[in-house]
Amino acid sequence: MVSLADIQAARERIAAHVYLSPCAYTETLSRMTGCRVYLKLENLQMTGSFKERGALNKILSLNAEQKAAGIVAASAGNHAQGVAHAARIQGIKAVIVMPETTPLAKIRGTQAFGAEIILHGGSYDEAFAKASELRDRWGYTFIHAFDDPAVIAGQGTIGLELLEQVPDLDVLLVPVGGGGLIAGIATAVKATRPEIRVIGVETESLPAMQASLAFGHVHPLPAASTLAEGIAVAVVGAHTYPIVERHVERIVTVSEEEIANAILVLLEQEKTLAEGAGAVGFAALAQHRVADVQGRKVGVILSGGNIDMSLLSRIIARGLEVDGRLARISVVVPDKPGSAAELTAIIAEQRANIFDLAQSRPLNDVQLGQAEVAFTLETKGREHVQDIIRAIERKGYVVTGADRGPR
Amino acid sequence: MVSLADIQAARERIAAHVYLSPCAYTETLSRMTGCRVYLKLENLQMTGSFKERGALNKILSLNAEQKAAGIVAASAGNHAQGVAHAARIQGIKAVIVMPETTPLAKIRGTQAFGAEIILHGGSYDEAFAKASELRDRWGYTFIHAFDDPAVIAGQGTIGLELLEQVPDLDVLLVPVGGGGLIAGIATAVKATRPEIRVIGVETESLPAMQASLAFGHVHPLPAASTLAEGIAVAVVGAHTYPIVERHVERIVTVSEEEIANAILVLLEQEKTLAEGAGAVGFAALAQHRVADVQGRKVGVILSGGNIDMSLLSRIIARGLEVDGRLARISVVVPDKPGSAAELTAIIAEQRANIFDLAQSRPLNDVQLGQAEVAFTLETKGREHVQDIIRAIERKGYVVTGADRGPR
Repeated sequence: MVSLADIQAARERIAAHVYLSPCAYTETLSRMTGCRVYLKLENLQMTGSFKERGALNKILSLNAEQKAAGIVAASAGNHAQGVAHAARIQGIKAVIVMPETTPLAKIRGTQAFGAEIILHGGSYDEAFAKASELRDRWGYTFIHAFDDPAVIAGQGTIGLELLEQVPDLDVLLVPVGGGGLIAGIATAVKATRPEIRVIGVETESLPAMQASLAFGHVHPLPAASTLAEGIAVAVVGAHTYPIVERHVERIVTVSEEEIANAILVLLEQEKTLAEGAGAVGFAALAQHRVADVQGRKVGVILSGGNIDMSLLSRIIARGLEVDGRLARISVVVPDKPGSAAELTAIIAEQRANIFDLAQSRPLNDVQLGQAEVAFTLETKGREHVQDIIRAIERKGYVVTGADRGPR
Repeated sequence: MVSLADIQAARERIAAHVYLSPCAYTETLSRMTGCRVYLKLENLQMTGSFKERGALNKILSLNAEQKAAGIVAASAGNHAQGVAHAARIQGIKAVIVMPETTPLAKIRGTQAFGAEIILHGGSYDEAFAKASELRDRWGYTFIHAFDDPAVIAGQGTIGLELLEQVPDLDVLLVPVGGGGLIAGIATAVKATRPEIRVIGVETESLPAMQASLAFGHVHPLPAASTLAEGIAVAVVGAHTYPIVERHVERIVTVSEEEIANAILVLLEQEKTLAEGAGAVGFAALAQHRVADVQGRKVGVILSGGNIDMSLLSRIIARGLEVDGRLARISVVVPDKPGSAAELTAIIAEQRANIFDLAQSRPLNDVQLGQAEVAFTLETKGREHVQDIIRAIERKGYVVTGADRGPR
């Protein structure tokens, strides 16, 4: 088990190297949810997530011999960067084993912190096995991403900060993967203010902690892919599980669609970039997954912001489609010069922007001598789309489709 | 003129309603630029920009009669929201005149703060004229976006915060539109620590302050459109100009491309959303527009984050193209069944994701009996694009184009 004293010691140990991240009241999210929402911005840490807290505490706790031998970790994500960053601060050799499928940006990001990267295997499990082999062969210390008391104590320092930043918090929403973050925070918070409700949030794609709690012991789930790759953990920790069982009120889940929506709201309304795992806490609040929070002070841990820009771009586009701000309209026109010109003039008049346009002679559904023009338009929203359709119809064209489905 | 005492009084006046925004050291941007970079995150203010500081100071300075009569402002942007927010805090009637071209999101955003919105005219100037007319007819107090000593003093409170947050700052980079923000900050900073260099940053599309300084007096420029619409001001202020002339070392400019790139870096590396105007300070630093900053402590004001999501989506896509992470490849194939299947299999093997695909029979450039397949691919970067092209060529296909130009 991890104690409050362990977490206090961790805080002193890592204080010089960790950013006291802001935890600001957000009026916009409060109005949206009916709670008083405080966002703890752990995405502003050096490596873009909270992971460096645990890694730092673990590495700073090593003895001189261990430090001289170096460390090894297996991770394709935030833990890799957290460990590399922490090792560099201490001037320790760090070897990170990453699956061969790791995106280049994450490899480079970790290399930038001075770690040696070994690409191995097609999955996390294979990378993990390789890291264990390197530990045995070279005497490295293995730094686990969550299932280590020193790592848990490091993550728990967020709890101590929260208690100072928002002393009269009622509820706390924490993302759950392997359970290191929530175990640390819950230990810190419950030892000091046991009345604060600590609630975990998982993706419904991979609710490994929820399943384990239902079984009464660590229960592995089949691996699954999710937007929230930072919490895509199939087997929760042997150290973290009993802490969660004891201190956490319940685990709620959110869907992939809800996570994507939360990322967009946090970006557009709060001007802050959350990765999938970082957005689940707010997603749960936005979707009313937690009972009895109306009017309460709710702390939401935004755990990280390391999201691929291609993925973010798709999430934004989908959000715009849902709002009708990106809309597809298909129009049947006579297959002769001038039709496209008239249509595009109508669209310009309506002050919509053409994102893309394709004109074709369809093979069926449309009579001979007619063509179809398909537009993707940037609009002001659904009402604007309706205005545009009406304007096109007034000129005698037939609108055959107005689609806001995924691109 | 505005004095340090005015700014100190403003700070007391508005303290309860303004967020003491973080100003954190950023190691990543420091390594990129060779300076020690501190980012002041004014995009985290309630309305997503610093504008509420000046609006609040002005409104809280009104007498009872003025408060009872209400206020009016003309703005399509951050000032509108700042004024609406400040008026609601005081329970004052606020009328905001916006040009008819204002995006729906900004209209709604301002309405959400309880202001009455009047859409009028096709430009800011027409909205401004309407607001002046309403002021005269109804006795409203007009709240100027920048050219008012109370507004300048409100923005200056950022300077006082900076001096406490980073006491030994060497250089300060401040976005410049009408000059209210930099006039306030420069007054606060220079009165206390005259050795700090204050440098303004404009978009090269509309360098109205730079032009005015060159002429030695306020010099209007023709209006221009820019990504940085928050600083798209053609005529700087009569109050702000002499302060800038006195306290600001120089004004540097950045291009639209550089602004877009800075937005992307701030998002991807710093996990924070800047609008165009908010990103110019970092853009200037990234582009080495300021001399003698190597190794210095440089404060960068990230003034706001209210950027349209469609625009952001385009900026991300363009950034990915520049990095080769979004790439177009055209391949000539025999016009028969199976060609597309083989090509897509090669691309899958190379672990690139197909963003879109179009096969066509070109009208020229390609022999009869051949077709062309055009892919837009999500890749890991330029090297990956080269790997994909080589893999396609090894199978005997001809790659006719590999384009990373704008979409």
